[in-house]
Amino acid sequence: MTQTRIHNLSISLDGFATGEGQALDAPMGHAGMRLAGWMFATRFGAPILERSGGTAGVDDAFAQQNEPGIGAEIMGAGKFGPPGWQDDPDWKGWWGANPPFHTPTFVLTHRPRPSIGMEGGTTFHFLDATAVEALDAASAAAEGRDIRIGGGATVVRQFLAAGLVDHMHLVQVPIVLGRGVRVWDGLEGLEADYDIEAVSAPSGVTHLTFDRKTA
Amino acid sequence: MTQTRIHNLSISLDGFATGEGQALDAPMGHAGMRLAGWMFATRFGAPILERSGGTAGVDDAFAQQNEPGIGAEIMGAGKFGPPGWQDDPDWKGWWGANPPFHTPTFVLTHRPRPSIGMEGGTTFHFLDATAVEALDAASAAAEGRDIRIGGGATVVRQFLAAGLVDHMHLVQVPIVLGRGVRVWDGLEGLEADYDIEAVSAPSGVTHLTFDRKTA
Repeated sequence: MTQTRIHNLSISLDGFATGEGQALDAPMGHAGMRLAGWMFATRFGAPILERSGGTAGVDDAFAQQNEPGIGAEIMGAGKFGPPGWQDDPDWKGWWGANPPFHTPTFVLTHRPRPSIGMEGGTTFHFLDATAVEALDAASAAAEGRDIRIGGGATVVRQFLAAGLVDHMHLVQVPIVLGRGVRVWDGLEGLEADYDIEAVSAPSGVTHLTFDRKTA
Repeated sequence: MTQTRIHNLSISLDGFATGEGQALDAPMGHAGMRLAGWMFATRFGAPILERSGGTAGVDDAFAQQNEPGIGAEIMGAGKFGPPGWQDDPDWKGWWGANPPFHTPTFVLTHRPRPSIGMEGGTTFHFLDATAVEALDAASAAAEGRDIRIGGGATVVRQFLAAGLVDHMHLVQVPIVLGRGVRVWDGLEGLEADYDIEAVSAPSGVTHLTFDRKTA
């Protein structure tokens, strides 16, 4: 069976996965690099910022899980671009000519546009769809492999609330962000459906994995 | 120098330290025993429920830090009794004739009453006071020892916001409580003042310690 997976979703102590004030020059809003900093320090994350090296411990081991077996990604409009990107017909995402997805990638937006083929195997598709509809479309494109829910917080919450997530890896960063989009709202009792593990890392972050209980 | 300390404050993944619907037969509201269950499983906590035994690992090591060096406690009205206890002149707290504080214990309430001496060294004092005023009163009574802020979440948040907390030990329990009183609200940027450590335990909880940075 294919799985729907979430990886490397960084949250603050107060549960915010996205800061406030996202803009072209501030993709993470007022959170800046503080949420994802742990990841860019790893062997997995360093090349994303065109750095060499990186740590090879528990943070890297978790970060690497992002890739294997993924056949398609679903992301929210806020991950694809800054507020208003829908008004720019030339906007093709934050990632340049060769985005790091290398699969069909479905962007949820109320203003769909034609699909865009990029270098390296990424094709952006734009859907005005519910979580279930998006998952159906992504599954059809994934050729039997898993679907990654790429965030941000609003999309993650939507898929969790719909009971569509099989595996989730959160990374709690020891900061109090205060503002932004909370991942937990509306998910009371989520733990009933999951086996949960927590592992703190020497870097200071705590990795939380949620695996859906089997019947 | 004496310190102002918080110990064994359990919070959910979504940051709630108290459930909703606190009542005489539900001291923790809808959270029930889920938040403090880790503590009652330790050698420190088992006797509180008149159980024997208990674990002696990392959870117990942290739990035991609650006691040494404390000369007074400050607690909120919601820790002392269920909503409306102020209307019951005979209410003397949840803990019976010999409460587990064994020091002067200051209860913050807008409706103070005369002090109550209990067995075992606990004396309840009732104050309608700001955080700073309460800390002054507790310090005067603590004979040079430390002050414990006993909770609940509202009082903890109040003391943190006022910059009065030197050491805080939180215990994050892997449940999504959904409702109650959040400990983090209004504390954006708290991490700037503290050295923070996170340690996950085999029981599934994660211990977070905050130690105020020295200048």
